[in-house]
Amino acid sequence: MKPVQIGIIGLGNVGLGALEILAENARDIALKLGFPLEVRAVSSRGVAEKTLPAAFASALKTANWRDVAEHPDIEIVAELVGGTGVAREIVDTAIARGKSVVTANKELMAQAGAELWDRAIAARINLAMEASVAGGLPIHAVLREGISGDRIKTLYGILNGTCNYILTEIESRGASFGEVLAEAQKEGYAEADPSADVDGFDARSKLAILSALAFGERIVPADIYTEGIRRITPVDFEYAHQLHHTIRLICAARQTPEGLIVSVRPSLIPQSTILASVRGAYNAVWVRGKFGADTFYYGKGAGSHPTGVAVVSDLMRVAREIRSGSPERVSPFAHARLGEYKPIPVTVHRSAYYLRFRVEDRPGIIAQLASALAAESISIDAVLQLPNANWRDLPFVITVEPATESSVRAAMARMAELNFLIEPSLAMPMELPL
Amino acid sequence: MKPVQIGIIGLGNVGLGALEILAENARDIALKLGFPLEVRAVSSRGVAEKTLPAAFASALKTANWRDVAEHPDIEIVAELVGGTGVAREIVDTAIARGKSVVTANKELMAQAGAELWDRAIAARINLAMEASVAGGLPIHAVLREGISGDRIKTLYGILNGTCNYILTEIESRGASFGEVLAEAQKEGYAEADPSADVDGFDARSKLAILSALAFGERIVPADIYTEGIRRITPVDFEYAHQLHHTIRLICAARQTPEGLIVSVRPSLIPQSTILASVRGAYNAVWVRGKFGADTFYYGKGAGSHPTGVAVVSDLMRVAREIRSGSPERVSPFAHARLGEYKPIPVTVHRSAYYLRFRVEDRPGIIAQLASALAAESISIDAVLQLPNANWRDLPFVITVEPATESSVRAAMARMAELNFLIEPSLAMPMELPL
Repeated sequence: MKPVQIGIIGLGNVGLGALEILAENARDIALKLGFPLEVRAVSSRGVAEKTLPAAFASALKTANWRDVAEHPDIEIVAELVGGTGVAREIVDTAIARGKSVVTANKELMAQAGAELWDRAIAARINLAMEASVAGGLPIHAVLREGISGDRIKTLYGILNGTCNYILTEIESRGASFGEVLAEAQKEGYAEADPSADVDGFDARSKLAILSALAFGERIVPADIYTEGIRRITPVDFEYAHQLHHTIRLICAARQTPEGLIVSVRPSLIPQSTILASVRGAYNAVWVRGKFGADTFYYGKGAGSHPTGVAVVSDLMRVAREIRSGSPERVSPFAHARLGEYKPIPVTVHRSAYYLRFRVEDRPGIIAQLASALAAESISIDAVLQLPNANWRDLPFVITVEPATESSVRAAMARMAELNFLIEPSLAMPMELPL
Repeated sequence: MKPVQIGIIGLGNVGLGALEILAENARDIALKLGFPLEVRAVSSRGVAEKTLPAAFASALKTANWRDVAEHPDIEIVAELVGGTGVAREIVDTAIARGKSVVTANKELMAQAGAELWDRAIAARINLAMEASVAGGLPIHAVLREGISGDRIKTLYGILNGTCNYILTEIESRGASFGEVLAEAQKEGYAEADPSADVDGFDARSKLAILSALAFGERIVPADIYTEGIRRITPVDFEYAHQLHHTIRLICAARQTPEGLIVSVRPSLIPQSTILASVRGAYNAVWVRGKFGADTFYYGKGAGSHPTGVAVVSDLMRVAREIRSGSPERVSPFAHARLGEYKPIPVTVHRSAYYLRFRVEDRPGIIAQLASALAAESISIDAVLQLPNANWRDLPFVITVEPATESSVRAAMARMAELNFLIEPSLAMPMELPL
């Protein structure tokens, strides 16, 4: 069978990683597919300076992405540019020209995925986005096919490798958030502007995409309550360990009778859960299905080669679909339309909570905090204070029995009016009753 | 689009589980596919006594599987009978009639998978076998699509839930193999004849299938060196923990420059690896790819509903392929044909080993054992003896630095000739240098 011709737009880490894999695994890929993939053209602004694998010496190299997206011979365009500007134009152009698209673009798919899928279906092309979430971890294949027969009840993810690296460094070394972040920036693990990672926005885009795949609903980043990890301190890990928990930035989507509760926030999770064993720059997804019970998936969150594998695997699958004459028929962003998966505010979420306070040292503080909780009908589970802690220097912690987020927020608002708080208190849900 | 009509043969746990899911998720399935699945016929010898979901009241119920496998309207036959007798006839008949097949049958696919795939391709039908390995864990989707672009170097699996349950009970309670097995049999977790599980044969079939998917080679159970868990004692876990390891029945397939080394055997694995966190009746697969680094997959190994999810997910995928007119084109058992994946004897495998001895109490024993190791150029790493151990009652352990399996076996043979061994010594590789 003749080769399927592909064009790669964007020669950053992911694009170059995918090209290396396409070159080195070319024979395996052809054997697995029954036909080869041919890299017909590559494009990036700096294409002149890029060193490409020798196998692609005869490919068209161009600084103008339109030469690729509009190339008459190219059947699949890989959009590896990122962002929502030019990338959107590239995807639109490719679809308009009847070309299939493989993308690694989480922002674009999170914001405009539903619309792009509708257009792909109308244009009778294929669209693939495995690389857009948790590059090294084939969670799309799992949700799209592997467990598609199940009805997913809950999905928990650790979807930002930078945050997980920072948190596990704070945990293992007792270093502060600021120290670890500065080191990570120096080593190139974190961006100069770390906000997308540490404030949870990157994870939020990924959760939007996974929620669509898992629940078949049009979930966009704005639907997702998001909190970053800037306020997590070594002492929070000490308290968490006392409670046999650890802290991770947990992306959660839970189906409840009222609807879907989606959030990205630092959370306490039991040390006994397999999710707690995810350390460093890894990603993981834990899924509870109505029928399939619990499954768990783990891999590198990013990186040139891991994400390159996702891109190449998508290219192979789309090439197979093209040769089968099998375009997309159903959008993963809208298959359910049952109403039961509508996102609802996180304020109705019910969970045990970890509340951390830093206060002035004076009598009666616990009594006043307890009154604020009692006023919202929240029961205290435990009051924890580290040995040798000075109340001025080290915070103390109250854990409370399951309560709604709204009642916890109301109690926190009452507490904020008490005049002995040295800094705003911190509330983290204690998740995952496994 | 009109429904795809399916027939279910075999109404044991898995068949009934699949039917429940098909009934309860019917609307979701139709939304995900764009068309419904219709259960047209079901068959089992005891069909008269089975209670089926009300949704399938109008399905044909028959005690004769041929009524299903030869039914003119049925497009997909689910073979959920198991074994290699009637099941083989069912699959052969369905393929001969041009029907696609979904199977949960590990023995059949391990023994005859390559041949059945060739016949499926010739007949232009679809064949799916997700449920044949690690029912609740979509490892087929992962290998077939999710990471198909990678080149897999090593695959480690915990593929028998009964063995993992028994081992983790020995570990946590200090109970003997015999005690835990008897309990497991009483509770229905283990078969009356436990050999298929505890002697590693069940895991071996699963590894044969996964090795084919991962490496594209015709690997059959006879290629796989297999050892069961009957000899593992609580004291082995005590020694393993001293070494910061634990013990699991590890299914391993490793690509080496000489070829593929495949084995199923109790092995020491570091407690720090995520594979060590797999406890109870769970299954897991850990994959190291050349490009994708490490990924890890975890879920229920068996059970009516988890395996049912795999069957239903396969039915959905095959139904989609049928509606796309996209039959199988490439066999997963023979895509590579590169020669570099040929199974080679486990004797060339190189690893650190844990050697356990029970001996008579007399002077000079360590010297003689050390001489036997030295004669095979094997270096001792450590000699361990539990506190208060009496050499007659409790075994002691020697760990050795990496050596080939053949040299370890030769040293063990030398030791067997020494007349102070009370029982045959036990050797376990110390795997997974993570």
